[in-house]
Amino acid sequence: MLDYPALAALAEIIRRGSFEAAAAALNVTPSAVSQRIKGLEERMGQVLIHRGPPARGTATGLRLMQHLDQVRLLEDTLDAALRPASGPATLRLAVNADSLATWFPPAMAALPVLYDLVLDDQDHARDGLRQGQVSAAISSDPEPVPGCDVLPLGAMRYLALATPDFLARHFPGGVTEPALRAAPAVIFNHKDGLQSRWVQKATGKRLHLPGHLIPASEPFARAVELGLGWGMIPEAMAAPRLRPLLPDLPLDVPLYWHVQRAMVPALTPLTAAIRKRAAADLRP
Amino acid sequence: MLDYPALAALAEIIRRGSFEAAAAALNVTPSAVSQRIKGLEERMGQVLIHRGPPARGTATGLRLMQHLDQVRLLEDTLDAALRPASGPATLRLAVNADSLATWFPPAMAALPVLYDLVLDDQDHARDGLRQGQVSAAISSDPEPVPGCDVLPLGAMRYLALATPDFLARHFPGGVTEPALRAAPAVIFNHKDGLQSRWVQKATGKRLHLPGHLIPASEPFARAVELGLGWGMIPEAMAAPRLRPLLPDLPLDVPLYWHVQRAMVPALTPLTAAIRKRAAADLRP
Repeated sequence: MLDYPALAALAEIIRRGSFEAAAAALNVTPSAVSQRIKGLEERMGQVLIHRGPPARGTATGLRLMQHLDQVRLLEDTLDAALRPASGPATLRLAVNADSLATWFPPAMAALPVLYDLVLDDQDHARDGLRQGQVSAAISSDPEPVPGCDVLPLGAMRYLALATPDFLARHFPGGVTEPALRAAPAVIFNHKDGLQSRWVQKATGKRLHLPGHLIPASEPFARAVELGLGWGMIPEAMAAPRLRPLLPDLPLDVPLYWHVQRAMVPALTPLTAAIRKRAAADLRP
Repeated sequence: MLDYPALAALAEIIRRGSFEAAAAALNVTPSAVSQRIKGLEERMGQVLIHRGPPARGTATGLRLMQHLDQVRLLEDTLDAALRPASGPATLRLAVNADSLATWFPPAMAALPVLYDLVLDDQDHARDGLRQGQVSAAISSDPEPVPGCDVLPLGAMRYLALATPDFLARHFPGGVTEPALRAAPAVIFNHKDGLQSRWVQKATGKRLHLPGHLIPASEPFARAVELGLGWGMIPEAMAAPRLRPLLPDLPLDVPLYWHVQRAMVPALTPLTAAIRKRAAADLRP
């Protein structure tokens, strides 16, 4: 068997960012935590924690933390009489920023766990799943990850929006190629291709857009509302005063729920809640 | 002189995440972009781009991108007749998540630049400033960074809040130490000490809190509104139905505007707008 007290120390260090905070949370001395990790690293033959500060898990360290979370979730499914008196289990999930900003949070109440959410784009979600560092992910990536089940949830609809003033100033002659090349867009981060995909749909061409980089969902929408640029906004977050750049040209982004196969039973209530929310709030 | 076309290629690669996207944005071939970077790296004697994917800047690469942004901002202050016909300058700023979610965005209109916002905690803001990778930062860190001016902005007031149901369920006998040790908190990330600091203020003790990790401002507040936990919420984001854990025990977090000294003149209008917003929305 693995050394579970050592795994508990490992998880606390990774989640709290230091050996000291982990020791206090576990109510043991920092040197006891150090020894548990040192022993675990010696048995595993590899480093599990980058010492920092902040202390961070290595890929193997994150994998072991995830294993501990899974064991604790399994313990939670035992009869109450058999269940150890430890606190609630932790569930580490990757969620794309716009889902977290809109339809996802109410589904979280379906499981009595502590959530450890990883806000990330699809590449990281995929890596996290493949390396066993997250139990499940909501992502726009349709490709199944080895060892995971994938369930389509429906599509998030994005609209290309701007303020009426912005449209009058930057698109006086309509949404032309030269205007798109000059008007500032609002872009989430360098992986965000939504604006470019919409432009390709609208003009048939790949244009390279000047843009603000604003890597948070609501501030992104707010920047568009303030007239700093145009951007692709989930329909649920679209302020009524914004106007579409072109009528009737939404962009639908299908979303998927990926779950580590070993976790499928323990996550059944969450999966049901996610499907229900998605059915209500996403496009079929 | 530095090779500015090569720096422009470097900045496009870092901001767009690939040589191909940079080439398209600059309207040159990918091999031209590659050669510019290779030449620049040979002259500098070091790697400027981690090839990826995604392509990412090294510390020196980020420093050179920042230098290019500064030169472009200076060009913008030239008379119109002397100004090159390039697009708007880019300004890379570090902003803490709660400022970006509340009072900061309207100040952005004060400068006609493209913003490249880095959403980050104070440690990264400090490192970014010291290494010259961001021009300025809004941070709770009061310590001046070498080469930067620092201006106090006032304090963001946080309230310890939960739903009435959550309070009745988890704090039936009041906000006691055992109740705080058991009730789930909502925590931004492992660097977020606000909940612990408030508990220390309330009880005189450092307790280690079980918690959900939700690393985005509005979803954090939403998780509290959904009754998943209690948490420290900026007063401007507090939903009316939430109740304080203890009356009259807010936590004020002073914020500071750090600016690279060379950028102080170019950022004067933004600094003025930030002071005005802060005076209106933060506590003195």
